[in-house]
Amino acid sequence: MSPPSDAEESAPPEAGAVLIDVTRGPALESRHRGAAAVVDGRGKIVAAWGDVERAVFPRSAIKPLQALVVIECGAADAFKLGDVELALASASHSGEPKHVDAVTAWLGRIGLGIADLECGAHAPYAAAAAEALMRAGRKPTPAHNNCSGKHAGMLSAARHKGEPVGGYISFDHPAQARWMKTVGEMCGVELGRAPRATDGCSIPTLAIPLRAIAHGMARLATQQGLDAERSAAAKRVLAAVAKRPDMVSGTGRFATVVMEATQGRILLKGGAEGVYCAALPGLGLGVALKIDDGAARASEVAIAAILRRLGALDDASWRALAPVCRPTLTNWNGIEVGQIRAGPGWLDESAQ
Amino acid sequence: MSPPSDAEESAPPEAGAVLIDVTRGPALESRHRGAAAVVDGRGKIVAAWGDVERAVFPRSAIKPLQALVVIECGAADAFKLGDVELALASASHSGEPKHVDAVTAWLGRIGLGIADLECGAHAPYAAAAAEALMRAGRKPTPAHNNCSGKHAGMLSAARHKGEPVGGYISFDHPAQARWMKTVGEMCGVELGRAPRATDGCSIPTLAIPLRAIAHGMARLATQQGLDAERSAAAKRVLAAVAKRPDMVSGTGRFATVVMEATQGRILLKGGAEGVYCAALPGLGLGVALKIDDGAARASEVAIAAILRRLGALDDASWRALAPVCRPTLTNWNGIEVGQIRAGPGWLDESAQ
Repeated sequence: MSPPSDAEESAPPEAGAVLIDVTRGPALESRHRGAAAVVDGRGKIVAAWGDVERAVFPRSAIKPLQALVVIECGAADAFKLGDVELALASASHSGEPKHVDAVTAWLGRIGLGIADLECGAHAPYAAAAAEALMRAGRKPTPAHNNCSGKHAGMLSAARHKGEPVGGYISFDHPAQARWMKTVGEMCGVELGRAPRATDGCSIPTLAIPLRAIAHGMARLATQQGLDAERSAAAKRVLAAVAKRPDMVSGTGRFATVVMEATQGRILLKGGAEGVYCAALPGLGLGVALKIDDGAARASEVAIAAILRRLGALDDASWRALAPVCRPTLTNWNGIEVGQIRAGPGWLDESAQ
Repeated sequence: MSPPSDAEESAPPEAGAVLIDVTRGPALESRHRGAAAVVDGRGKIVAAWGDVERAVFPRSAIKPLQALVVIECGAADAFKLGDVELALASASHSGEPKHVDAVTAWLGRIGLGIADLECGAHAPYAAAAAEALMRAGRKPTPAHNNCSGKHAGMLSAARHKGEPVGGYISFDHPAQARWMKTVGEMCGVELGRAPRATDGCSIPTLAIPLRAIAHGMARLATQQGLDAERSAAAKRVLAAVAKRPDMVSGTGRFATVVMEATQGRILLKGGAEGVYCAALPGLGLGVALKIDDGAARASEVAIAAILRRLGALDDASWRALAPVCRPTLTNWNGIEVGQIRAGPGWLDESAQ
């Protein structure tokens, strides 16, 4: 094993803020720490927990920002991409038949096929879809990969620009340079020297301060400081996600359920290793959080608690969304054994 | 949502010790904190990280201590239970055909069947076994439940004692009272007033200080302070696990792989929510750890690092076991993207 690099050495030793408690019966069983930033369109911090200047890999949570590229480069209009495609470009989808079919049709529209996707294959997140594949004796394809819509977007831009498509996932391909420029501008950071690693779907991922990621989401929500072209692109991404939240995640999953219930007032996007982002057009805010330990279960409940605190989820929504926002843990016999919920002091008792 | 109870309020607000780092490329992506205790047969702390007096739910990690009951009550001899059954009584097995077949045969031997198991059903942990069930259009049964061996052990004791078997998972059934007495004695704690909750398999789980759990494991390893009958039972559990580590976990899984490689010198048992225990007869030590956030990935790498520190894994084993003790993370294309490894300062650079 190689010795720690400079980047690791510079990682802060301090523990994050207590965000999420997992209870079992009367006791606290596990606890998740992390950092979260709520930022307005000008970049002003409205609320913060933990170290929000720490650079984190946003992973899939910035896909809605990456989707801007598909519109701005002209590919969306040239290939007549609609809400379904733009929602899929912003998605970590469940690999349900509707997701896979839409991505496959989209690839056909740009003269490509599933074999051109370089994201790798994995079984659908949707249990029913995964089971159906198994029962049919079929293997998952790259179209089932939760990132296949983002990749179809990158391929659309490359086709529209007349670039080679093979190797589009490489750091040196214009498809990657494009989103790095756009995301850097949205987040207000120079990404040229950002710590770089490889994402699950093999494109690069760049470490960005949490506050800056939240700022990017706030700009997406408010279009503050954006030129006319990017403002239009931002509105188009927001509208597509609002119209087809089922394409951004999947049936019954946290982001889709919350976005459907709030009818376009909230854009939600998670990323691997406990990252979650929200864009709130009505409140003019962006949110980004990272769970220190990378747990998805905590990132969902934490972003829900922040939405509640900010008033983005009203009393009725908060009650209706309890099963995904404050999940009850059940065991193999269906007995309620515990809860996942905001840590002490995060929410008023009435808000819990 | 009900207000926090006293037990929750008393949970320590302090963050645990940094135990495990998850890297991606050159950077730290996620970090796991927790507590760990290494204790000798007299209960003396040999090494500790974090708050080892904190009571944690040991979950499945104390199954080898619960298995003592099956022997001591006379059921093991009466029903001629061998290494396979005693290893299964100590197991969180993968639901492979060999596990399910052995549990089913065992139940038959005590005049019962799968329908008498009250642990609930879940798909086998072993992907191949789960897939085979699906392809065959079959549903998992309680025999596939990872705890089915522990339950068969409890049923064996109840049958041997002539107790009713229905409802054996209830706190008030003698099957539960038996293990609570034995585990309390092994750990040197009075469990009568311990915080109690319901485990995944529906039996009670009791919160025990981490140091005391480690002491229980040390007593299992050393038989120090145990009477002749319990000493014999401890030796029999150790021997069964050493002989059939494949029955305690499953093919390719961390505990089985490490126990097979170390040929009976290490007993390893994990539990849900990031608990891990080890009994080390050669060194005369017991180990117990809990990852604050409940992550299994961290608990495995942390117990491995402790085994390395203690010298329980020699240079050759440490090198050979790298794939499970210091796992490389790969993405959907099989590209190496990061590592899970001991946090800074935990191990000498040479030991890493």
